[in-house]
Amino acid sequence: MSDKFFDYIIHGGDYNPDQWIDTPEIWDEDMRLMNLAHVNSATVGIFSWSMLEPEEGIYNFEWLDELLDKLHENGKDVILATPSGARPLWLAQKYPEVLRVEESGIRNEYGVRHNHCLTSPIYREKVQNINRRLAERYKNHPAVKMWHISNEYCGECHCELCQEAFREWLKKEYKTLDNLNFKWWNGFWSHQVSDWSQINSPKFRGENHVPAMKLAWKRFVTDSHISFFENEIVPLREITPDIPITTNFMKMYDGINYQKFAKHLDLISWDNYPAWDKGRNVAEAYETAFVHDTFRSMKDGQPFFMMESTPSLVNWHDVNKLPKPRRQELSSIQAVAHGADSVQYFQWRKSRGGHEKFHGAVVDHCGHENTRVFKEVAKLGRNLEKISDVVGKRTNSKVAIIYDWENKWATGYFCGYNNLERDYYKECTKWYAPFWKNGIAVDVISMDDDFSKYDLIIAPFLYMLKDGVDKKIEDYVYNGGKFISTFLTGIVDKDDLCHLGGFPCGNLKEVFGIWAEETDSLPKGVENAVEFNEHYYKAINFCDIIHAENAEVLAHYKSDFYYDTPAVTKNNYGKGTAYYVAFCDKGRFSKEFIEEIIKEYDIKADTEIKADSGVSIRKRGNVIFIMNFSDGVAKVTLDREYLDIVNGTSVSGEVTINECGYLVLE
Amino acid sequence: MSDKFFDYIIHGGDYNPDQWIDTPEIWDEDMRLMNLAHVNSATVGIFSWSMLEPEEGIYNFEWLDELLDKLHENGKDVILATPSGARPLWLAQKYPEVLRVEESGIRNEYGVRHNHCLTSPIYREKVQNINRRLAERYKNHPAVKMWHISNEYCGECHCELCQEAFREWLKKEYKTLDNLNFKWWNGFWSHQVSDWSQINSPKFRGENHVPAMKLAWKRFVTDSHISFFENEIVPLREITPDIPITTNFMKMYDGINYQKFAKHLDLISWDNYPAWDKGRNVAEAYETAFVHDTFRSMKDGQPFFMMESTPSLVNWHDVNKLPKPRRQELSSIQAVAHGADSVQYFQWRKSRGGHEKFHGAVVDHCGHENTRVFKEVAKLGRNLEKISDVVGKRTNSKVAIIYDWENKWATGYFCGYNNLERDYYKECTKWYAPFWKNGIAVDVISMDDDFSKYDLIIAPFLYMLKDGVDKKIEDYVYNGGKFISTFLTGIVDKDDLCHLGGFPCGNLKEVFGIWAEETDSLPKGVENAVEFNEHYYKAINFCDIIHAENAEVLAHYKSDFYYDTPAVTKNNYGKGTAYYVAFCDKGRFSKEFIEEIIKEYDIKADTEIKADSGVSIRKRGNVIFIMNFSDGVAKVTLDREYLDIVNGTSVSGEVTINECGYLVLE
Amino acid sequence: MSDKFFDYIIHGGDYNPDQWIDTPEIWDEDMRLMNLAHVNSATVGIFSWSMLEPEEGIYNFEWLDELLDKLHENGKDVILATPSGARPLWLAQKYPEVLRVEESGIRNEYGVRHNHCLTSPIYREKVQNINRRLAERYKNHPAVKMWHISNEYCGECHCELCQEAFREWLKKEYKTLDNLNFKWWNGFWSHQVSDWSQINSPKFRGENHVPAMKLAWKRFVTDSHISFFENEIVPLREITPDIPITTNFMKMYDGINYQKFAKHLDLISWDNYPAWDKGRNVAEAYETAFVHDTFRSMKDGQPFFMMESTPSLVNWHDVNKLPKPRRQELSSIQAVAHGADSVQYFQWRKSRGGHEKFHGAVVDHCGHENTRVFKEVAKLGRNLEKISDVVGKRTNSKVAIIYDWENKWATGYFCGYNNLERDYYKECTKWYAPFWKNGIAVDVISMDDDFSKYDLIIAPFLYMLKDGVDKKIEDYVYNGGKFISTFLTGIVDKDDLCHLGGFPCGNLKEVFGIWAEETDSLPKGVENAVEFNEHYYKAINFCDIIHAENAEVLAHYKSDFYYDTPAVTKNNYGKGTAYYVAFCDKGRFSKEFIEEIIKEYDIKADTEIKADSGVSIRKRGNVIFIMNFSDGVAKVTLDREYLDIVNGTSVSGEVTINECGYLVLE
Repeated sequence: MSDKFFDYIIHGGDYNPDQWIDTPEIWDEDMRLMNLAHVNSATVGIFSWSMLEPEEGIYNFEWLDELLDKLHENGKDVILATPSGARPLWLAQKYPEVLRVEESGIRNEYGVRHNHCLTSPIYREKVQNINRRLAERYKNHPAVKMWHISNEYCGECHCELCQEAFREWLKKEYKTLDNLNFKWWNGFWSHQVSDWSQINSPKFRGENHVPAMKLAWKRFVTDSHISFFENEIVPLREITPDIPITTNFMKMYDGINYQKFAKHLDLISWDNYPAWDKGRNVAEAYETAFVHDTFRSMKDGQPFFMMESTPSLVNWHDVNKLPKPRRQELSSIQAVAHGADSVQYFQWRKSRGGHEKFHGAVVDHCGHENTRVFKEVAKLGRNLEKISDVVGKRTNSKVAIIYDWENKWATGYFCGYNNLERDYYKECTKWYAPFWKNGIAVDVISMDDDFSKYDLIIAPFLYMLKDGVDKKIEDYVYNGGKFISTFLTGIVDKDDLCHLGGFPCGNLKEVFGIWAEETDSLPKGVENAVEFNEHYYKAINFCDIIHAENAEVLAHYKSDFYYDTPAVTKNNYGKGTAYYVAFCDKGRFSKEFIEEIIKEYDIKADTEIKADSGVSIRKRGNVIFIMNFSDGVAKVTLDREYLDIVNGTSVSGEVTINECGYLVLE
Repeated sequence: MSDKFFDYIIHGGDYNPDQWIDTPEIWDEDMRLMNLAHVNSATVGIFSWSMLEPEEGIYNFEWLDELLDKLHENGKDVILATPSGARPLWLAQKYPEVLRVEESGIRNEYGVRHNHCLTSPIYREKVQNINRRLAERYKNHPAVKMWHISNEYCGECHCELCQEAFREWLKKEYKTLDNLNFKWWNGFWSHQVSDWSQINSPKFRGENHVPAMKLAWKRFVTDSHISFFENEIVPLREITPDIPITTNFMKMYDGINYQKFAKHLDLISWDNYPAWDKGRNVAEAYETAFVHDTFRSMKDGQPFFMMESTPSLVNWHDVNKLPKPRRQELSSIQAVAHGADSVQYFQWRKSRGGHEKFHGAVVDHCGHENTRVFKEVAKLGRNLEKISDVVGKRTNSKVAIIYDWENKWATGYFCGYNNLERDYYKECTKWYAPFWKNGIAVDVISMDDDFSKYDLIIAPFLYMLKDGVDKKIEDYVYNGGKFISTFLTGIVDKDDLCHLGGFPCGNLKEVFGIWAEETDSLPKGVENAVEFNEHYYKAINFCDIIHAENAEVLAHYKSDFYYDTPAVTKNNYGKGTAYYVAFCDKGRFSKEFIEEIIKEYDIKADTEIKADSGVSIRKRGNVIFIMNFSDGVAKVTLDREYLDIVNGTSVSGEVTINECGYLVLE
Repeated sequence: MSDKFFDYIIHGGDYNPDQWIDTPEIWDEDMRLMNLAHVNSATVGIFSWSMLEPEEGIYNFEWLDELLDKLHENGKDVILATPSGARPLWLAQKYPEVLRVEESGIRNEYGVRHNHCLTSPIYREKVQNINRRLAERYKNHPAVKMWHISNEYCGECHCELCQEAFREWLKKEYKTLDNLNFKWWNGFWSHQVSDWSQINSPKFRGENHVPAMKLAWKRFVTDSHISFFENEIVPLREITPDIPITTNFMKMYDGINYQKFAKHLDLISWDNYPAWDKGRNVAEAYETAFVHDTFRSMKDGQPFFMMESTPSLVNWHDVNKLPKPRRQELSSIQAVAHGADSVQYFQWRKSRGGHEKFHGAVVDHCGHENTRVFKEVAKLGRNLEKISDVVGKRTNSKVAIIYDWENKWATGYFCGYNNLERDYYKECTKWYAPFWKNGIAVDVISMDDDFSKYDLIIAPFLYMLKDGVDKKIEDYVYNGGKFISTFLTGIVDKDDLCHLGGFPCGNLKEVFGIWAEETDSLPKGVENAVEFNEHYYKAINFCDIIHAENAEVLAHYKSDFYYDTPAVTKNNYGKGTAYYVAFCDKGRFSKEFIEEIIKEYDIKADTEIKADSGVSIRKRGNVIFIMNFSDGVAKVTLDREYLDIVNGTSVSGEVTINECGYLVLE
């Protein structure tokens, strides 16, 4: 499909007027307010099943007809949701097998949302049926521009149907029991499987110590979600082949391999809820940027939607600090800068009751437009209209960081070394930060993606190397790539079986020119010191003890019994260079080391603009975004004259940006 | 019924000689010791069911006959308990449906106590049967002066009988499913109920995100307890209509709405276990005073019983620090000062085995009277005999604090703002403290109680306003009342549905002269500053951001983006005045603000006596209690000559009271 | 049986070549490497059931035949394990009753290990069957020198079979229900049992507040394990009567009373996994020494095996810090010094997959001998060969500390006083430390052991005194023994029933010359002061308030309301002396007090050698071990010339030992 689904940035969000069915005057008021807020779109129908089909086979689409017409009359695009995220009570009561069985083995009662079996034939049938009716009814409705499938797919089911499906999946994956027994190392603790029927899902009260089995289960759950999704969209593809399809992802949620699921979507969308104004805004900013870049990289750079965000606060953080004025505006602009073609909110109007009634919304319980939040949304809406040029534009990155969903699982499952502090996400964002700070675009990719288009790849804590990935790295470096690894690289294969013959596995010992003999783990509060360029840096959590067999040693440990052994090495291999950072950095080393790398290889920022610390600069198409995430006014030095698109003025030289402020230049 | 059930202060407590049935010499020794201890009463028969009915239909009352006779011969009043708090094993084995089903949906095995279904017809029948036999047998026994029903009612049951009862209760409460669906805002997440049979109790593994449903369940559980209680007392009312009935409450236990239950009792009693000598004696003292006042206010000021307390330590605090000498004596006197007509202990003699064998008792395992604890109890007994004049006397308060059980539930259930620090009890006791420190009597009432008799009402964190309460507050202020509210006032109705149109709800915006637009939440360690009268105070947890529309601004925020916006307002409305304290105070503001209010409205203390900090002064009838809760000697300045009732001497001028000491004057 | 099972120290460990069945070249490589490592033994067959009996009744011993032959050809002794620790999947699938039912009442699914019912007749039959086949097949194999039964017995089962067995056990223990009702104090909360069938195992969702019942359950579980073990070894005793039998214990694991179980073994063995190099090496050293001494004392001083240890790190600590070079060598030498006749590892070769693949092993994933760890193991192997003289040698101790498994249970179960800080193990090791530091051998015994052979016995926190133990202590002191007790001594009997008449129970009041009236509990951070010999010491957690009736007062409390009351007393009784330390010491008092005691009674160290702090000196037979556990070089002053057995040189005067170094002298 195309990169560009609309000619303008979508500004809108979840709209649930079915909760206000008894007060039609509120529907009309909403239209008035949407116009005031420069909102051009609404996402409707999420969780509306019991309104659409109040009893089995009894349908009620009239309200939705009226709603879509009203939205269309007011010039709003509609993103229409399928309602599978929460089933009606009558359905759960009549077909209890649609309810999920948790790991405990006990079937849930009806409640909350996302509480359905992914395998259940009857649930899949009922979902297809309601989706088909939606598609039939609205296939020609001029307002409907996109399908939003279900909502935030998540979770898993352990019912007998799912157990059977898991066994079938395993047969396909492993072919023979001998192979499975070998791959799962079932000789350990006498766990050899002699019949497929002996296998159940991993459970706290059953098998829970076989990492390969847990990985298989995660892969199965991912495939179950994809299969459930593919089943949902059958009637949509059939009846509305031209309407693009998405579903909303949840940040780095690791219950589903999003890198795999993404290939099945026309467009990626995700729900963005950073925790601003908790004393770490710059870190929150680059971590959020990292997530945007992850989703942008999943379909080869294609722009994505920010399907949800809050115009003020959420209700589900531990403590929901109010973001400062303009903070959410800045947060929205950041999404666009990193590749989003939409700014959408959960939700338009606050619920009156229920679990999420204190979640921020454009329209508050007071019901009018005279609130700080409403005014900010309206202002942003106006601004977004001015920068519609970016829609569909891709980003060109020569640097990639590998963040791989399956490696995330594997690093979470192994027992050993440091069992307390082992945060793959943190390792990756730590190495992302210096690029963000220097205004250099980065892709975030999986180990299965194409390496060849990058000048530099960083693969923090790449514990799992699937078959062939070692060769891929070798080829990449051999052909001129720069590659940086950190501790515990290349330990296991896809099934968490250790590679034999010394770490990092296989030929990587030659590529990096080292052998990692042991790994030390440091308890919280204990640090080692690393000397690099005559400065000292702090190592925490993990320290590989390595032998520099051919590599040049760039830094040494300065403490403990491995004092003066290599901590960072560099090895030229073929036309490229491979670096090994043997330790887990506390934060300063990665920054200064990457700055050296940037200098050494002359890696270019997106622009020549310079700015104070805490300011992020991104280029998308011809548009430059300068965003101030620091806790105060920031200075920016422009390298030439630019057009300030928002204000329509020309700017040059040194300019200042207020806290939470931004500039959009061309 | 009368305010006065005895002519003297009851001094006694739980007595379980059935645990010592094999050693009759201990029964006689107990009589000797009770006389030495100036104990005039014993509470017997709690948990005695398996002694009274060792097998189904086989009764054994002989031991109880003997016990009651022995107590009577020794001049002791008997408070006779019904044994429903713990059922015999044979009963649970034969009728397993009497055992409780926890939220998990799994029926408990036999164990501990309070493990019975509140709905079970067979359990209700068995309870009535044993109670009837007790009443028949002892209706004319001269020692029996009061019924103590069960013991510390608590908990809930989720069995199918209770589910059905819950559905019936809902039908009565909500009349129609349309109404229930609206009130529970079931449009959210597609939870519309289409048949009553679809509803189950809230469960972790089922429906647990519908606050209105959780509130309904709490109300149902309260009504189940009341219904169970009313069933228990049928034979007692019939056979012994003149014997008053009580049951013992547990502090602020929120599983039952005690403010509702209290109306069904002849006399309120409660079990008082403060944690003294843990470095916060003054706070413990005013918090305990708050609880006494809560129970005293529940039946319109009628005196209550302190049914349990410990003469030394308990065994169930995390760490059971020994209270200092005289500490428990002082604690007992405090109860009397606040309206108790009894000082009763759990228990007379320490159990030899079992879970509570290290709970303090009057008689220790050593078995004799030569212990510090025994001597203190005996001394207190002598003193109580001297102050029997207070029995039946009420307290006259012109100030009330609203602590409402249903608001407690609601403030605990909502998801949003500050989900970590949200302690309704703490909010209320914080505002109670300055009155306690200034010797001013306070009632603690529910939002359903009569407001008109008070000059000043403080309603901290009154998040829920049931129908009509806004009007009640309006009328109260309009007619001259002073009313102080704090943050998040008037947000939801009885079913946790948000009031629309801006907060605080309805006309209260006019009454307070403000509009609360947003609420900020502060994480632990983060504070805002509030300037009032040229001093700075600390705001924590919650800060409403308000607009003073007509109100006078008394204080401002001095930090964050709402710097200099109003933090405290005052508004004259009709003949009265309404104050809005927009933030959660760290402790000092409420003290100094209330002292201003006391001055401004010339609110009178109970007496003219002045004392050092940490000393509590209370008047009951004509008797004045001066109690030193500080960690040292305290000075008291008497305004005139008084009679020291305990010592029989006359006192005046400046006197000193030792740590843990007290004076009783007339 | 003999004290001496081999003429040399066994050096080897768990060997699982069945995990490498597909790579026979690795088996041969293992033989080469074992020879290089000076390993003389291998423990095989643990968890091999599914390899030995891949389907019910289908056996495969060929691989084990080949393995034993290969080991024998290479001169290795074999310790052959029975495989009951983990059952094959086919067995669990066909006979689901062999799987364990947890306290929840729900039967586990297949998984992990030690997941079997201890009562199940079918499981017992299957275990006997496979054991019989092993014994028959290898009864004459020259390599097989010892049986290793199962592995780390642990856990419990709550299935209906176990419930019934529990009831039968109770009938034997208590004879009548009247007796049981009395001993369990079932009058409390109306828990009288009227039929044996009413009793179930203690459960969170059932009966869990009866301490005597929990103690009975623990005793039953211990007896179940012994009975399971005795069933396992029936065919072994019958077919291989001359092969000694052991099973490996897990440190102070309290699920089984090891002091009782030990009597059933020919030889005790245990698995030793200290956590070195976490900043507390000296404490770790004396705690580990305490555990060695506990196992050495269980069979009257008979040497034991260290069946497992790690040659580098483990994988299951929270954070698995790498031990320093030579650390594990020192740790192994410590075991030998304290009575071990083996140094064995878990495991020889790291697993390639599964839960324990990152647990240290002699051969790493790299597969060769050129690692630090391998070289250290080989060096230790050479040294062990030189000190084989110690094999079979006992230690002579004149000092004992009572650490009693049943008292451990009881101190963990009671509710009262300090419910948070109550660590019996810590109390005992605290009093062990000063002896360790002074090079004085200590036995660690139960209250059932013979007291008469000791000059001094210390019984910290001996809360439970079983019938007759008070008399035993009295006799011991009367006849000249020195006895030191601490707080809460002699409170309850075997069934946790309080002794009546004042504490410590019975005649012990005369023996100690005191009466303990009350016990204060101090929250974390609160301390009392104790003055002794003009110095001040810190009391924490527990403080008995005592009356020195006849005793001499050695120290006083200096704080709180019991200021200046006795804190330590001394009482001469008969020919002996009894000390009462009324408080829980923070650490310094026990050290200095014991040093006074050592001086006063002239208690001799094992040798006259003096050394720096952190150095442990132990004598076993004629061999003296000097071990440096301090964090640096240590000085040792020899009192005469010795032969350094390891280096074959003569040493005298002042010598230095490196960190982690040791000397073995003769």
